[in-house]
Amino acid sequence: MSEVRQKAELARKTASILNSLTTEQKNQALLNCAQALIDHSEAIIEANKEDLQRGRENGTSVSLLDRLALTEERISGIAEGLRQIVELPDPVGETLETIDRPNGLHIVKKRVPLGVIGIIYEARPNVTVDALGLCLKTGNAVVLRGGSSALSSNRKIVEIIHESLSGSAVPRDAVQLIEDPNRSSVDELIKLNGLIDVVIPRGGSSLIQTVVQNASVPVIETGAGICHTYLDASADPSMAADITMNAKVQRPSVCNAMETLLVHKDFAQSHLADIAGKLREASVELRGCDETLRLISWAKPAAEEDYATEYNDYILNIKIVDSLDAALRHIDRFGTKHSECIVTENGPNAERFQQEVDAAAVYHNASTRFTDGFEFGFGAEIGISTQKLHARGPMGLPALTSSKYIINGSGQIRK
Amino acid sequence: MSEVRQKAELARKTASILNSLTTEQKNQALLNCAQALIDHSEAIIEANKEDLQRGRENGTSVSLLDRLALTEERISGIAEGLRQIVELPDPVGETLETIDRPNGLHIVKKRVPLGVIGIIYEARPNVTVDALGLCLKTGNAVVLRGGSSALSSNRKIVEIIHESLSGSAVPRDAVQLIEDPNRSSVDELIKLNGLIDVVIPRGGSSLIQTVVQNASVPVIETGAGICHTYLDASADPSMAADITMNAKVQRPSVCNAMETLLVHKDFAQSHLADIAGKLREASVELRGCDETLRLISWAKPAAEEDYATEYNDYILNIKIVDSLDAALRHIDRFGTKHSECIVTENGPNAERFQQEVDAAAVYHNASTRFTDGFEFGFGAEIGISTQKLHARGPMGLPALTSSKYIINGSGQIRK
Repeated sequence: MSEVRQKAELARKTASILNSLTTEQKNQALLNCAQALIDHSEAIIEANKEDLQRGRENGTSVSLLDRLALTEERISGIAEGLRQIVELPDPVGETLETIDRPNGLHIVKKRVPLGVIGIIYEARPNVTVDALGLCLKTGNAVVLRGGSSALSSNRKIVEIIHESLSGSAVPRDAVQLIEDPNRSSVDELIKLNGLIDVVIPRGGSSLIQTVVQNASVPVIETGAGICHTYLDASADPSMAADITMNAKVQRPSVCNAMETLLVHKDFAQSHLADIAGKLREASVELRGCDETLRLISWAKPAAEEDYATEYNDYILNIKIVDSLDAALRHIDRFGTKHSECIVTENGPNAERFQQEVDAAAVYHNASTRFTDGFEFGFGAEIGISTQKLHARGPMGLPALTSSKYIINGSGQIRK
Repeated sequence: MSEVRQKAELARKTASILNSLTTEQKNQALLNCAQALIDHSEAIIEANKEDLQRGRENGTSVSLLDRLALTEERISGIAEGLRQIVELPDPVGETLETIDRPNGLHIVKKRVPLGVIGIIYEARPNVTVDALGLCLKTGNAVVLRGGSSALSSNRKIVEIIHESLSGSAVPRDAVQLIEDPNRSSVDELIKLNGLIDVVIPRGGSSLIQTVVQNASVPVIETGAGICHTYLDASADPSMAADITMNAKVQRPSVCNAMETLLVHKDFAQSHLADIAGKLREASVELRGCDETLRLISWAKPAAEEDYATEYNDYILNIKIVDSLDAALRHIDRFGTKHSECIVTENGPNAERFQQEVDAAAVYHNASTRFTDGFEFGFGAEIGISTQKLHARGPMGLPALTSSKYIINGSGQIRK
């Protein structure tokens, strides 16, 4: 039997035990794991050095090596993340609905774990701990398939977690790490219907698209964000500048950062040059439509495909539009249904924008950077769903649960 | 451009209009459609005759021809179904959650349509009307891919619906019928990510598996049901008999009918022969384990694969078990996570069964036949989900919606 199937079967076997654990049992196990990571941080750092060494030999970029590197401080941050998950309310067991039928049937819809969750991710070893913490808290088993570049770190982390779980009510097999670094292990994992209840890919858009296109197991699509900010004719100029700068440069590498600025022609006439100046100071490369180039001589021309590109970088498209309708059409065409924003003092325009834009999060007068589980007050996040099924937008603990109808009768039969 | 893509694009273009319609506008359009079907019932029956004729020429079975046949009475039943959908509350626009953040951001989670729903189904032309009614009520466009055996009926029905919608606020392109009878049109439809938001297959398990295995668009899996009834040691004998008979023979062809009866050995000793006698009177073929064969000489032996078969027929497996645990293990192995039942007077056993069995609906002392949107009081049903993502069990109108976060600020930026 392949490693993937074998580990998925081991995880599956723990599902019914996990489903019956109390919140206290799950929390205690997570606290133990947090402490174990701290206690063994030297061993983790040793293992991480192997990954870094291999990375340097393979010519991995400095920024990627930085994401991969673990220090005492980072490990204690990771452990702290687990402790924060412990503090969150446990959604499992919650009554979602109660129905009393005229025939006397009493129906209760209860929240239950999803079962076995597959997480497919790339470099950062912190995702290993974060994902297993969120899954265990919600009574799910987890099959982790991390990137090969972090394999030594992930292996050591899971070894420590296994040891720690052995002394708890959570079965150690509830956490499985696929060690096979080949693409074929991903291909196999995403087709294990009956063993895996859902796969969540976390990483770049090529990983996500591979999973979405090839999985037969249900997928929660996360991530890709071509986010727009539309500065309406009546936008407050200083607010418009602040939101534009924040959405573009506060952290350009993330999915909720802005890629295209849409500007109403009237606003552009009076205020775009100022904003462009600020962007230039922040070293942002501008790619503009013809109208934009007339106002900002140093901008480069934007090609059609630029509007369809998630730069995740200090690059911004600017397009001047004649109307709110034109802005809506552009977003409908190029948006990825992640986060969109209108800056305006015109209430009806804001309302129309928020009603008509089809996205997980639609902002009026606030930066798209807020689309995040922590910023929404969820206290944790397994990712940001960009699909419409099951969960949309930042996913907190309830996104890792399903439901079950429990029906009590007194001998009812159907007529 | 292929027919499938062209029609999906037409449907997609109507999504933003549908999303903005009032409940009254949608209801009026559905009432018009209901009346139009009645007014044109003769034309529908004429078209249906072509399907029946073709079916007879192709040697279609009498029972399938019966499912395909439309009469004045059936058409008025179909129209009545639309009027019932009109009576249901519109879930779109409902506020699901309100979050006020310390930084002043006001976040509202609102129910929105899914967008464009693909429905892939088989013979019955009533599904055409039922599905489009549920989709339009929830502000969704729908791409219908019905079975080729009902093509003439479906084409006429959609023609009448289109004509009727032309006089309403609902764009006629919101309803699309794929006429290409080839499998390739299904294959194409289930890969139209970006145009189709979700596909729901309704029909036999081979159709459903084809869609689940090959779709890259999110799928809601429906249907397959290997449902068990477990008669515990302390079951009330008369209730046990009633529930067994109802779950097996009231309508054996449906997914919530029972396929395997599990019986505690103590109960079997005193009462199984009686129940078997009643099943025999109802012409049910029994396939039993060795223990069962000792008690019921006329039963056939059950093979391993029988326990994994959805008969949808007057056939029942019987297995005698030593304990509740053995029953739970059997269900865990052979169940399809649809509907499971325990008949017992022992409260803790019932609780344990309902907690541990992993299924959409878990019954204590009531027939599994109740797993149905109408019986649950939803007033309509697009199918019964057997997956854990998005919707589980009978799906009413809310299962055809997604959500969107609407965030209002006053210039907030992320620190």
